[in-house]
Amino acid sequence: MTYCVGLKIDRGLVFMSDTRTNAGVDNISTFRKMHVWSEPGERVIVLLSAGNLATTQAVVSLLDERSKAVGDRAPTLLETPSMFRTAQIVGNIVREVISGTALEGQKAESYFNASFILGGQIKGSEPRLFMIYPEGNFIEAGGDTPFFQIGETKYGKPIIVRAYDPAMSFEETAKLLMVSFDSTLKSNLSVGLPLDMLFYEKDTLRVGFQKRITGDDPYYRTVSDGWSSALKAAFKNLPDFPMG
Amino acid sequence: MTYCVGLKIDRGLVFMSDTRTNAGVDNISTFRKMHVWSEPGERVIVLLSAGNLATTQAVVSLLDERSKAVGDRAPTLLETPSMFRTAQIVGNIVREVISGTALEGQKAESYFNASFILGGQIKGSEPRLFMIYPEGNFIEAGGDTPFFQIGETKYGKPIIVRAYDPAMSFEETAKLLMVSFDSTLKSNLSVGLPLDMLFYEKDTLRVGFQKRITGDDPYYRTVSDGWSSALKAAFKNLPDFPMG
Repeated sequence: MTYCVGLKIDRGLVFMSDTRTNAGVDNISTFRKMHVWSEPGERVIVLLSAGNLATTQAVVSLLDERSKAVGDRAPTLLETPSMFRTAQIVGNIVREVISGTALEGQKAESYFNASFILGGQIKGSEPRLFMIYPEGNFIEAGGDTPFFQIGETKYGKPIIVRAYDPAMSFEETAKLLMVSFDSTLKSNLSVGLPLDMLFYEKDTLRVGFQKRITGDDPYYRTVSDGWSSALKAAFKNLPDFPMG
Repeated sequence: MTYCVGLKIDRGLVFMSDTRTNAGVDNISTFRKMHVWSEPGERVIVLLSAGNLATTQAVVSLLDERSKAVGDRAPTLLETPSMFRTAQIVGNIVREVISGTALEGQKAESYFNASFILGGQIKGSEPRLFMIYPEGNFIEAGGDTPFFQIGETKYGKPIIVRAYDPAMSFEETAKLLMVSFDSTLKSNLSVGLPLDMLFYEKDTLRVGFQKRITGDDPYYRTVSDGWSSALKAAFKNLPDFPMG
């Protein structure tokens, strides 16, 4: 599987993705699941992908090709007038790729499935964040649900639900995602290091801080060990169950 | 769905289960998922169930009937010579019920699926804990994997993985499960209060402390609120991500 999160804060957007892909536990490899298109001063578009690797790579390649061959099929990712229109284009390509691969029946289709988180900003409008389903339709993050997760989402959800605050800084948001990813990594083999992280600061219209976090990254180690001991300490401090 | 945990500690066994069943989110009800058979001084057998309610009820009813009609089909749940043999009997009934309901095809079978956690002790042998699959086969908890979860297992797993310790008291184990269930309840509508809890103290050969925990249980409220603030505080104390 995969674990990817896109999160909206007052200051912009934060993205994080793992890099493990597997076809069975005996066949794992590392692939980047975070893809960025940008025209500095004009637009930044980030796409996170989960699901069948052939499908997600085909989607990204088609988006790539179409954004290079400007004029070939307008509008391309670098020409769309809005993030909504961008999500529509990605959704159409997702549906196209999946229906082109699925031979027949529900099983084949679900086998080639993929989901995406799309976020970014285009000059003249606000940053926006979408989740795109295998069927090609999509939903947008609002104030009540300011983040999307795809892949192995359950382990890392409780901490986001509890600690998210729209006023967080990028540094705090990175910490939150680091904890959420660490909980997932510790519980599920199909999510693996290294992690890719990207900050997009609102209205800058250029890709912000980007980092690949490996297992020996000192900050990652601090969070991972620190969170384990903090959890144990917090747990210890809660009163024990009063029997009888 | 459901969330049930069976956990082995040095002092015995601890079981916890939620009570929500649903056929769609517009049709939820409360059913007990913890079932106990015992003959004080001889044996205690606890069964937790997850999955299709018709299947799990049929399994429990059959086990019940057969344990009452002693001599009808030997050995019954109250006569089995070992927990291993008990698990075999439960597994056979599970397979029987599911294959009797599934009309045809893989879909129907998976629709009627159910999983079980079986634990207990029979005089003359150690307490044992099993997980029984819809296919009727089963695995036993050992030192490396001292707990089983069924149903919506992912949200509540990270805290058990981190805080479990075989030397824990019953009071601490109850606290651990309370936190694990609270994380699940906060993230997934298909798991719901009240919770059923049971302690089995090794070698007592009788059902120990039992309690139904409702939403207004003061200890549950303390843990739920306390854990939220403890998590937030622990999170705050971790160093923020060092940008650049």
